[in-house]
Amino acid sequence: MNARVSVSEAAALVRAVVPDRDLDREGIAERFARARWSAIAEPGDADAGRLIAAVGAAHSVELLDGAGQPGVLEEVAGGSFADAVERWRPRVRQVDSALHLRQAARFGARLVIPGDPEWPSGLDDLGQHAPPALWVRGDAALLGRLERSIAMVGARAATGYGEHVTIEAASGLVDRGFAILSGAAFGIDGAAHRAALASGGATVAFLAGGVDRFYPSAHETLLTRIVERGAVVSEVPLGTAPTKWRFLQRNRLIAAAARATVVVEAGWRSGSLNTAGHAAQLGRPLGAVPGPVTSSASAGCHRLIREYDAVCVTSAQEMAELVYPTGTPTLFTGDPSPERTRVLDALTRSGRFVPQIAAICGMSIDAVRSELGMLELDGLAVAGPTGWRRTTQ
Amino acid sequence: MNARVSVSEAAALVRAVVPDRDLDREGIAERFARARWSAIAEPGDADAGRLIAAVGAAHSVELLDGAGQPGVLEEVAGGSFADAVERWRPRVRQVDSALHLRQAARFGARLVIPGDPEWPSGLDDLGQHAPPALWVRGDAALLGRLERSIAMVGARAATGYGEHVTIEAASGLVDRGFAILSGAAFGIDGAAHRAALASGGATVAFLAGGVDRFYPSAHETLLTRIVERGAVVSEVPLGTAPTKWRFLQRNRLIAAAARATVVVEAGWRSGSLNTAGHAAQLGRPLGAVPGPVTSSASAGCHRLIREYDAVCVTSAQEMAELVYPTGTPTLFTGDPSPERTRVLDALTRSGRFVPQIAAICGMSIDAVRSELGMLELDGLAVAGPTGWRRTTQ
Repeated sequence: MNARVSVSEAAALVRAVVPDRDLDREGIAERFARARWSAIAEPGDADAGRLIAAVGAAHSVELLDGAGQPGVLEEVAGGSFADAVERWRPRVRQVDSALHLRQAARFGARLVIPGDPEWPSGLDDLGQHAPPALWVRGDAALLGRLERSIAMVGARAATGYGEHVTIEAASGLVDRGFAILSGAAFGIDGAAHRAALASGGATVAFLAGGVDRFYPSAHETLLTRIVERGAVVSEVPLGTAPTKWRFLQRNRLIAAAARATVVVEAGWRSGSLNTAGHAAQLGRPLGAVPGPVTSSASAGCHRLIREYDAVCVTSAQEMAELVYPTGTPTLFTGDPSPERTRVLDALTRSGRFVPQIAAICGMSIDAVRSELGMLELDGLAVAGPTGWRRTTQ
Repeated sequence: MNARVSVSEAAALVRAVVPDRDLDREGIAERFARARWSAIAEPGDADAGRLIAAVGAAHSVELLDGAGQPGVLEEVAGGSFADAVERWRPRVRQVDSALHLRQAARFGARLVIPGDPEWPSGLDDLGQHAPPALWVRGDAALLGRLERSIAMVGARAATGYGEHVTIEAASGLVDRGFAILSGAAFGIDGAAHRAALASGGATVAFLAGGVDRFYPSAHETLLTRIVERGAVVSEVPLGTAPTKWRFLQRNRLIAAAARATVVVEAGWRSGSLNTAGHAAQLGRPLGAVPGPVTSSASAGCHRLIREYDAVCVTSAQEMAELVYPTGTPTLFTGDPSPERTRVLDALTRSGRFVPQIAAICGMSIDAVRSELGMLELDGLAVAGPTGWRRTTQ
């Protein structure tokens, strides 16, 4: 706990955001500490992750509270924490986790921590950059079932084409049992969430600010519907403003929580390329939807395909294959054999005899006879008084 | 020579199609023999290539003329020629190379053979599948200067989008000194030739039939202009009809003669995928232009990118880079550092003091001071009586 909250107060606060689970004293302390870390450290702070990994969340905040003596953190976790402590110090005393937890309870938000069945297992791949906790409104259990999920992200300034493709693909992915993850922004993100909801599918929105303040505010209604039928998630406490930095870090959560990421439309320097970069760094399959080369809204997608080995995906099926690849392709096969093509070339509707066909094809009499036999079996050639004729145009 | 043409007749016929070069008796015999081979063997006949490689063109046709005794060809070239001789036999006596050469002279066509300065060196990569000779109308010398060349091919049923992209790209490639190679078909091929001509560039059309019969006939005017200002090429003698087989083999010439191949638009089973397949087999760079996923005319291009590692190319510059690659790309770099982003996030137009900024950013006082200093140097932040302010929106 911290100086201002008693053990029993903390227990009541934590139980209000994890109402359905028996928590012992240790569990309470762990959750309270992680709530504090989610406010003390900015998203993606690897030093916080390293310290928590070394001594546990509860002990690490105790150490922070008592951090006057230099070298204590280094002793328990190795490496250097001098810069980190300087970074954390201004917030250690300011942060009011009791307020955050009360706000969460008021909004019906849940505090989810690693190891919970509601924890998205993909986030563990972030290692020391993983968030200490998630604040979740809506169906938190959904987060524990993202083994079939795809992130669909893209330009805020989407075109009609981009939104059309997003809607088609998101619906098709829902039909295939995929949850749709995105960032609730204007354009592609919003279209992806909406299409998932419209198809009766699961959808999760990751926000850069607290889950009490819906951003963008014009998506208030959309986000309210996602809370009702999916989940809205943030790694920062309620009341926290979204910032550029938090948007960039929020993108890593989307990329890590989803099994694959698809960028539908993106300008040459679009923020969704950042999500794509996280997906690639995590070794997650990355897809990009092509579009007209004359559309600047597709320039980022083409860049991902061209320079970053993103898979060119054109349909829900191809997006699903990012996660569950199917067999090898079969392009230059399946064509008729050279001999067959040449004999077919030489056949007319009026008829030709075999020696003439052989001369025309530049093939032996025997080879021509053999091909004609197979063409006859396939119903493409027939013999008659004027020689062999083709039966189809 | 053959039974029906005397040595002096053959010399006159050959000299008429290679008017500007001194040819000795051997050179005459070689060319006459290759003219014959171009009619005896269908395009791409590897047995013919193997035999010519083993004993030379002239000797190989002599052997064919006298081919009654089995085992003669095997003795000189190894392997088996039994099937090949059966295939060639119907034509050996029928072929009238004197007629072909006379026709060529009448149309001002030139007979180009391997080793000529007019021979496209890329064709040598076809090995035994290389043509024995080429029949060329127009600027044959152009064929010897294809070290800067790109094949632009695609759907006959091109869309307005595809033709627009073709015209832009072909013009841009001409501006960069590239010759444009294609197949003179409707749609993309025609647009590529036209744009090259309009930009004053070099262009070469490869035909599946003889260079006396322009196919498609609606491209008569276009092909006439290509003859006047570029070159029209075929590996089959004048008077030969185009067939499906010859189209497929013609595609290998385009892919081999060009330094790189670009497919602009192609349906799911377009013939231009065959050209792409030849380019890939030859190890030539292969590019494909993306388009709307809602356009079936782009489906083949997306397939090439997705399944066959074709490079996604969106401009003339990117097509040129297929041949002359430039430096490594720089996607996820160039962004401001995390610290810079966080300090900028915390700055307002009204001003904040350093400790406040540090608390907002979750950074140490020192780190904030250092970032502010750099932001000031960049003109993005300024200090004043109300603290630090950002200078730009």
